[in-house]
Amino acid sequence: MKFTLQATDPKSGARAAVIETDHGKIETPIFMPVGTAAAVKAVHMHELKEDIKAEIILGNTYHLYLRPGIEIIEKAGGLHKFNGWELPLLTDSGGYQVYSLAESRKITESGVSFQSHVDGAKHFFTPERAMDIQRTIGADIIMAFDECTPYPCEYEYAQKSMHMTHRWLKRCCERFDQTPDKYGYSQTLFPIIQGSVYTDLRKESAEFIASMEREGNAIGGLSVGEPAEEMYAMTDVVCQVLPRDKPRYLMGVGTPANLLENIALGIDMFDCVMPTRNARNGMLFTSEGIVNIRNAKWQDDFSPIDPYGTSYVDKAYTKAYLRHLIVSKEMLGSQIASIHNLAFYLWLMAEARKHIIAGDFASWKNTMVAKVQQRL
Amino acid sequence: MKFTLQATDPKSGARAAVIETDHGKIETPIFMPVGTAAAVKAVHMHELKEDIKAEIILGNTYHLYLRPGIEIIEKAGGLHKFNGWELPLLTDSGGYQVYSLAESRKITESGVSFQSHVDGAKHFFTPERAMDIQRTIGADIIMAFDECTPYPCEYEYAQKSMHMTHRWLKRCCERFDQTPDKYGYSQTLFPIIQGSVYTDLRKESAEFIASMEREGNAIGGLSVGEPAEEMYAMTDVVCQVLPRDKPRYLMGVGTPANLLENIALGIDMFDCVMPTRNARNGMLFTSEGIVNIRNAKWQDDFSPIDPYGTSYVDKAYTKAYLRHLIVSKEMLGSQIASIHNLAFYLWLMAEARKHIIAGDFASWKNTMVAKVQQRL
Repeated sequence: MKFTLQATDPKSGARAAVIETDHGKIETPIFMPVGTAAAVKAVHMHELKEDIKAEIILGNTYHLYLRPGIEIIEKAGGLHKFNGWELPLLTDSGGYQVYSLAESRKITESGVSFQSHVDGAKHFFTPERAMDIQRTIGADIIMAFDECTPYPCEYEYAQKSMHMTHRWLKRCCERFDQTPDKYGYSQTLFPIIQGSVYTDLRKESAEFIASMEREGNAIGGLSVGEPAEEMYAMTDVVCQVLPRDKPRYLMGVGTPANLLENIALGIDMFDCVMPTRNARNGMLFTSEGIVNIRNAKWQDDFSPIDPYGTSYVDKAYTKAYLRHLIVSKEMLGSQIASIHNLAFYLWLMAEARKHIIAGDFASWKNTMVAKVQQRL
Repeated sequence: MKFTLQATDPKSGARAAVIETDHGKIETPIFMPVGTAAAVKAVHMHELKEDIKAEIILGNTYHLYLRPGIEIIEKAGGLHKFNGWELPLLTDSGGYQVYSLAESRKITESGVSFQSHVDGAKHFFTPERAMDIQRTIGADIIMAFDECTPYPCEYEYAQKSMHMTHRWLKRCCERFDQTPDKYGYSQTLFPIIQGSVYTDLRKESAEFIASMEREGNAIGGLSVGEPAEEMYAMTDVVCQVLPRDKPRYLMGVGTPANLLENIALGIDMFDCVMPTRNARNGMLFTSEGIVNIRNAKWQDDFSPIDPYGTSYVDKAYTKAYLRHLIVSKEMLGSQIASIHNLAFYLWLMAEARKHIIAGDFASWKNTMVAKVQQRL
C-alpha cells in the first residue's frame, strides 16, 4: 500500500491524499460504504461503482464468518471474487459486532467466546484467528482485533481494556507478519486506537499504535453515543500524535457534519451504516439539508428527489414517488434512497478534497456543516 | 389501440401480433410484470426497460387507490408521470384484491364494500367507480370490474356470479364510454370472462363478452387453484369463441409452462406475480429448468446464475453469491433474482414469438415445456 499526501489545508488539519492498493487507488478523504454481509444493502455492485462512485467498500468479518462462512469465501478465491467487487476492500475485525450482536459473549485475555446471533452456535475469536479470517476473506486492508468500549465507560475499565487491546495488537501484528498474502495481492494491517473519551488514554493509545509503524492507523470506540464535541476532542488528540505520512481512519463515523469536522481534524477515511440504514427509514442527506421523506409535506411534491444530486436516481424519481415507496415499504424505496445517500456521501468527500486542494476547505466546511444539518 | 395479427402457427392456436398504444407498441405474446403499488417489487424503472425489456407493466387499482391514493396520482398527471414508466400500462380493476386482501368485504348488485388491509378504513367500489379510478390512474388498458370466483366453486354460485359480472360489465362500458380520456392519450377497456371451470358457463361468458365488441378481451378466474388441465380446457373453450382480430389476455397466469401452453391455445397477454414473488423466495426460472437457489448444492457453485440468461445479472453474479444473499435475507438477493426471472419471462415470450413467425412454434413449445419444468 502506498500513501501520498497531496495537499494540506492551511487553516485546518484537513489533508488530500492518494492511497494505492493492488485493487486500485483511493482518493482521500474517502467514505467507505458498508457491505455488511458481502453486499451493500439494496445496492447492485455496478451501482456502487458507476452511480455512487465508491472507491473502497467495507465488509464485516463477523457477518461473513457466519454467512456464507470462510470456507465458501476461500473456495471462491476471496471476497472480491465471491461478490464481484473488484476495487479495494477493507474488513473490520469482527470485534465490534461480537460485542454488539453476538449472544453470551465472554472476553478474556486469550480472546472472545460468543454465540452466533444467527443460529446460536458457539465460536471463539482470538487476535490470531481474526488475522487468519481476514487474510482469507482477502481484504486489502485488515483491521486489528480490539475491544470497542461502550459509552459511557469508567476510566478504569477503559484503561484496562485499552491495554488489552494493545496486547492483542502485538499478537495481531505477529500473526499478520508471519502469514503470507493469501491471494497474490498485497494485504496490510491497520491498528486501532482506543481509550474511550479520556484524553490521556487516547494520547497513550495513539502513541502506542503509532509505535507499531503499520501502513495506516485507525481510531475506534467513537460514535458510540458520546456527544459530538467529545468525539472531535478525541480525534484532535490522536491526530496530533499520529504520523502525517500515513492514512487515518475514523471507524463508524458518522453524519455528514461529523465527516466534515473530522476531516478538518486530519481524518482521511470513514465508514458508517448511517447513509444506508437511514435511507431505508426514509432519511435523505442532501447538500441543502436533511429530508425526512415520510413527512406528509412531500406527498404531492413532484420535483426531483435532489436537483443538486449527482446520482441518476436524483432526477429519475420524484420526492412524492419516493415517499410513496418508503411509506408503502416497497423495496425500491430503500434502493433509491440508499443510492442517493451513498452518492451524496461520496460527492461530499470529493468536494471536500477539491476544497482542500484549492486551499479554501476551512471556510467551505463551515458553510457546509451549517447546511447539511438543516431539516428541510 | 390498434391490434395487428402478424402470424399464426399452423399446428396450434398460437399467434404473433402487435398492439399499438399511445405509449408505444407491444409485440405479442407478451408477459406484463406486475407493479402492484406503482413499482415492480425490487426493480428500478430503467432495469424494467433496458435489462428486462418489459413493453407493458401492470398496476393494481386496489393498492394504488389505498396508497398513494387517487388524488396524488391525479395531481401527478397519472401513474406514468407518478412513477416514471413511459411505456404502456394496464390496470386491473381492483376486484381481485378486494376479494383476496380486503377485510369484511360485502358483495351486492350495486358493488363491493370493504375495509382497507392497510388501515381498516371502509370503502365502496362500484363498476362505475372502478372505471373512474382507472381513468384517473391513467392506464392505457383498463379492466372491467368483475367478481373473480374461487376454486372450487359450486356451479350455481359460478353462474350467478358470472351473470352479475356481465351486468357489471354493461355498467362499466356505459361509464367508460361516457367519460373522456383523462390525460390526452387513448384509453381502452377490456371486459373479463368468468364462469369458473364450467365449459358451458365459460362459453356463454365468452359469447357475452365478445358481443360487447371492445378492443380486447380478457379471461379471469383461472389460476386460482384449479389443475392446469382445467385451466387449459377453459382457455381453449373461450379462444374458440373470442374474435381473432383482438388481443386475448389471460389474467394472473402463470408458470413458464402455463404461458407456453396457453399461447398454443391462442392467448396473447399474461401477467403474474410468480416471477417476482418466487424470486424473493429464491426460485429461479431458466431455459434449462427451475433452480431453488436456497438448496445447499449451490453454496459453492461459482458459475454464473444463468449462462444462457439474457440479463446482465445472469453473468455479473454467481449462484453461490445469490444463494448467500437469499439465505441471508439481503435485499440485493431479491433484486437480482427478480431481474433474472422477469428477463427470462420476457425472453421466453420473445422466443415464442420468433417460433410462431418461423412456423415451428408447436414443436419448439413441446421441447420447452419439458425443459422449463425440470428441477435443476
